[in-house]
Order: sequence, then C-alpha cells, then structure tokens
Amino acid sequence: MPSLPHFNRRALFGAFAAVPASRWLVFPAVAQSQAPQLSTVPLASWNDGPAKQAILDFVRATIDPSSKDFVPLEHRIATFDQDGTLWVEHPVYSQMMYCLDRVPALAAQRPELKNVEPFKTVLSGNREAIAKLTTPDLEKIIVSTLSGMTTEEFDAEVAKWLATAKDPRWKRSYPELVYQPMLEVMSYLRRNDYKTFIVTGFGQDFVRVYSQQVYGIPPQQVVGSALAVKYRYDKDGRPELIKEPKLMLNDNDAGKPEGIHLMIGQRPRAAFGNSTGDQQMLEYTGAGNGRRLMMLVLHDDAEREYAYGPAQHLPDTKVGTFTQELYDEAMQKGWTVISMKSDWKRIFPFV
Amino acid sequence: MPSLPHFNRRALFGAFAAVPASRWLVFPAVAQSQAPQLSTVPLASWNDGPAKQAILDFVRATIDPSSKDFVPLEHRIATFDQDGTLWVEHPVYSQMMYCLDRVPALAAQRPELKNVEPFKTVLSGNREAIAKLTTPDLEKIIVSTLSGMTTEEFDAEVAKWLATAKDPRWKRSYPELVYQPMLEVMSYLRRNDYKTFIVTGFGQDFVRVYSQQVYGIPPQQVVGSALAVKYRYDKDGRPELIKEPKLMLNDNDAGKPEGIHLMIGQRPRAAFGNSTGDQQMLEYTGAGNGRRLMMLVLHDDAEREYAYGPAQHLPDTKVGTFTQELYDEAMQKGWTVISMKSDWKRIFPFV
Repeated sequence: MPSLPHFNRRALFGAFAAVPASRWLVFPAVAQSQAPQLSTVPLASWNDGPAKQAILDFVRATIDPSSKDFVPLEHRIATFDQDGTLWVEHPVYSQMMYCLDRVPALAAQRPELKNVEPFKTVLSGNREAIAKLTTPDLEKIIVSTLSGMTTEEFDAEVAKWLATAKDPRWKRSYPELVYQPMLEVMSYLRRNDYKTFIVTGFGQDFVRVYSQQVYGIPPQQVVGSALAVKYRYDKDGRPELIKEPKLMLNDNDAGKPEGIHLMIGQRPRAAFGNSTGDQQMLEYTGAGNGRRLMMLVLHDDAEREYAYGPAQHLPDTKVGTFTQELYDEAMQKGWTVISMKSDWKRIFPFV
Repeated sequence: MPSLPHFNRRALFGAFAAVPASRWLVFPAVAQSQAPQLSTVPLASWNDGPAKQAILDFVRATIDPSSKDFVPLEHRIATFDQDGTLWVEHPVYSQMMYCLDRVPALAAQRPELKNVEPFKTVLSGNREAIAKLTTPDLEKIIVSTLSGMTTEEFDAEVAKWLATAKDPRWKRSYPELVYQPMLEVMSYLRRNDYKTFIVTGFGQDFVRVYSQQVYGIPPQQVVGSALAVKYRYDKDGRPELIKEPKLMLNDNDAGKPEGIHLMIGQRPRAAFGNSTGDQQMLEYTGAGNGRRLMMLVLHDDAEREYAYGPAQHLPDTKVGTFTQELYDEAMQKGWTVISMKSDWKRIFPFV
C-alpha cells in the first residue's frame, strides 16, 4: 500500500453525518453547470481593500516593462490550490464524495468486496460508521475506486458523476460552487499573460475532467496527486493506459513545490492557497528573486459559506487546516490573507 | 540503483572513439547560438513531396471549422521527440556528453570517486576504454552527475556547458545543430494554435534549460525522464529543491505515453519521432479518434548529416534504433516517414 496524500480526517468527515445518505448513493438528474460570465472590470466581485490592492499592484508592477519588477512573458506563472481556494471543500472534499459514490459500482464488479472492510461499511449507508472510518480505510477506498480502469473510462465516470452529484447545502452541482472572486483573479492574470495552473492535493486526473469548463484551465495546466498509469494493448491490439493502484506523486505539502518542478519546471510568480497543504508552495514561490504574490483564503464567512480555522479568533470547528502557525508565518513573510467575509462582495457565480 | 532510461549503448558510443578527448575534458570559449530566423512561408525548407503535403493537409483539415476533422483549440497538442528528431543525436547524445564532462567536477567534490569505476576510466581520458563502458556504468555516471545539487545549480551548470561545448564534426554548439525543417513544423503548428511539446527520453530538466531559446517551447511544455526532487531548507532557512538519485519517470518507449498522460493529460493529435523509443507515443497518438498525424524522421543523408537505420536498404551503421520492424509498422499504420535526404532542402539553420 503506497503512502497517500495527507488527509485531514476531520476535514473529510467533520460534518459528514449532516450529509444525507441519499446524496451519495443515488445519482439525481441535474443539469450541468455552465461556465460563469466574467465582467471586464478587473476583480469586480472584490471589495476595495488590501487583498484586492495586492493583486492589482502585483500585476501592474510585473507587466510594466519599465518597472524594476517586470516579469518576462515566459515566466508569468501563477498556481492555485483547488479545494478551499477555488471551490468549496466543506464538509467533505468533492473527490472523496466521488470515491464513496463509486463503491457500489466497484462492489458490483468485485462482489468479494461486499463483505470486506471498509467497503462493507460504506455500502451499509450507516453515516455514523462511515464518519468513523480511519485514514488507512479512506486510502483504501480512494486507491480502489481510482484505479483499475482505462484513463478514458475514468474520465467518462467522473463526467457522469459531475453532471448529477449535488452539494447537500446548496443543492447544486460541485462545479457551480466555485468562488466567483477567484475566477476573476485567474481571468485577470490570464488577460495579463500569466499562465494559470491548478496545483491540487487531490487527483489531477479528476480535476482535469472539468478544469477547462469550470476554470478555463486546460488539462496540461493541472498538477496534482497522481497514480501511475500503464501502457498496454487491449484485446484488439489498441493501445490504452490503465490507472494503477500505485501513487506516483503526492502533491500535498512539500509535494506541491516538488510537483511544480516536475510538471511546470519553473518557480511560480504568484501562488494561492488556504491551508497547511499549501504552505511549502507559498514558501517556494516567495523565496524566488523579484516581485512575488502569495495569498491565503481565510474561511471566515459562516453565513455565506463556512467559518473554520483558528485565525482571527474564529472558533476551531475541527475542519480545515489553516492553523495559527500558518497565519503567523503569513504575517511574518508578508503573505496576504483574503477574508471571504470582508474582501468578497459575492461568493458564487450563481447568486 | 533505479532502472534507468533504456539506452542503446551502440547509439551512445558507436563512434565515440572519433570524438577528440580534448572536446569533453575542457570548455573552449564559444559564443552561444542565436535563435534561428523563420520564414513566414510555411515549411520553406521542405521540398514538395508526401511528407510536406501530409503536414499541410493535417493542419488545414484540423483548423477548418467546417471540416469533419476539425480539432477544437484546447485539443491541439503536438509532441516531438528531441534527439534525432529535432537535433543531432550522432555520434553521442549531447546529454551523455554533458554527463561525461561533469565527471571531473564531480570527482573534485568527491575525491573518493577518482579510484572507483566507472569514474576512473572516464577521468583517464582513454577513449577506447570509455567506449567500452557498459550500460550500468553509464547509468552510474548519469545518475551521479545529474543529482546532488539544487535545481538552480543544475540549471546554471547546464547553461554554462551549453555555451561552450561543441559538436566535434561541425565545431558548433549543440543548440545550433537543430533541424531547420523541424523548427518550421513547430512554428507552423503554433501559428495554427497547436501547442508544441517536447517528449524526450533524456532528462527534462536538461532540455528545459534551453527549450525556450532553441525551440520556442517553455519549460512546462517539456516532458522527459525525471529524477525526483526533494524540498528542503538551506542553512539560512530558504527553501530549495535538491535533485535526488531516484528515477521518477522513465520517458522512453511505453514511458512516453505514460509521461504524456502524467504531464499533458490528453492524447496528442500529432507526434514526431525517429526511433523505437517513440513507437508507443506514435501508436497512442494514432489510436485516438479523428484525424491524427504521425511522422518518423529517417536519417538517410550521410553527406549533410548521417545515414543510419535499416530502412530503405541503408547500411546498418550500428547506431540509431529505427528498426525494420518500426519501418514496417509505420507503413502498415500509415505513418509518414520523413527522408532527410529528399524531403529537406536544408538541414541546419546556419547553412
């Protein structure tokens, strides 16, 4: 069993009991979300304040050829964590929901799993028992449901799931739960010739299925944790790639700068995250020469989204990993903390 | 010791004895090459014929929105092998020369290696003995000289070497020995919104140092064999990435489609190679739906470059891996073989 992405079990399951069981055992028919419309005004959904100003100042300084902070086109690289930075991660990561939802199909293919833990518990639908699954249990579920098929079969399964799965609170598909202000940051950077990359701790194959449609980011600009694939020929001699139960890249924590080096090959100029899983990516970005921009999204809006994390005297709700230590490092190094409550006029495109 | 990229030892060393020892033990001062000028006429250095026509037909069919073969912008991906496809690989791969050239510096840092094989043989300068080194010996040299430093130190070492190292036949730097017709193919594809990627069996960190300058390809569009890197802090607490002696991706043979999936995340529409190391990349490309373009460069021009490979009744010169089997597969599957002798008006930009 390979070591797997570092999960915060509490983040995965802190509020799991609140998720209706019907949500992840059936596929309600829901229309697929549409790509949101973006205003031509930069950062239209941002309130004036230090966070918005930091973004505007960074871009203006680095695109001006007469500026000492000018960045040549080929070095304009910006990286974004996904879960909690670009879309909702609470109460359960969407890819974890996908893996749980895949268990019935997996058990249909491999009936011997029906009486084997942790699959038996997942199939039982007992939410309290599921919420108590250990990290190794969850890893087994993740690896089992994300491997064994061709890459094309996997893409089709994810696309089908995305078209039907719904978040329990907003009753909307996951791709609709992107943060409008972050779409605007990506768009603003791209209009100024920055290349935007997602650098996610979860599986890059999963995110690549919808990254173009949801974020305007093509598959080759999605870096994430990756299982190995194996090239082989099917019974008709056609080549195919099989997803294997073997972790090739753990794109969390120190794995983020390592994955950036592997797949991008240069240090970002700007990096956006929201948790300790992004700490090293922001450190690595900030350690380069010249002007850089490092930002952390703070979930402090219980009314419009969620409030979690210890910073700014928020109650520790046992989810999320924006620790006090990370907050202190941000302050000490001059990273900018984005307050969802005060910096964002709106949270989602659909409001 | 990890398994390493599959080397054709004869390709590495077939004509090694012809290389002056002074070439790789000193660094003559040579001006760096300049990026070649490209004509605005598509494929100006190509003679009319089936190869040129195949490229023109493919591009015209796939960019025409009314064509049944139309390819949306986000799927316009073209991949190119490097050695023997974009620049000279004979008599010794340039990166192998780099590794040999690094041995004295390595031995200065680690004097205990001076009496250890295969380093002792390399340091002796005995060309006949060096030409007899085994594949495991070469792997030791490669891994030892490409690991142990920060990624930034490595980049600086490669850049310094490229500015001074010269090919023994043309007395020119390696970046000057690119094939002008292939630069034109890449430029023509890019003008038609194809993204061009290098997919090399040798190290991607090496190629990324010069890919923008030589090919107009940014680091994030270079896929290749990769050693792992490790994130750590230096004595002043600054983050850095250290190159480790651990192979993460062997981007040869079946490793090419696997590496393409890892780093690009979608199947190419066009692929260019010249050897059995590219076979699976071309198969994978050709197995996709819709219009595809697969091409192999045949080295059949002994006068202007080299002639090797068994196809077209060329003498087997013991270098290169364009086998008869590969040639037969190309004919059977409708891949286009590019004859350097008859399809290319010129070989290099400098003529």
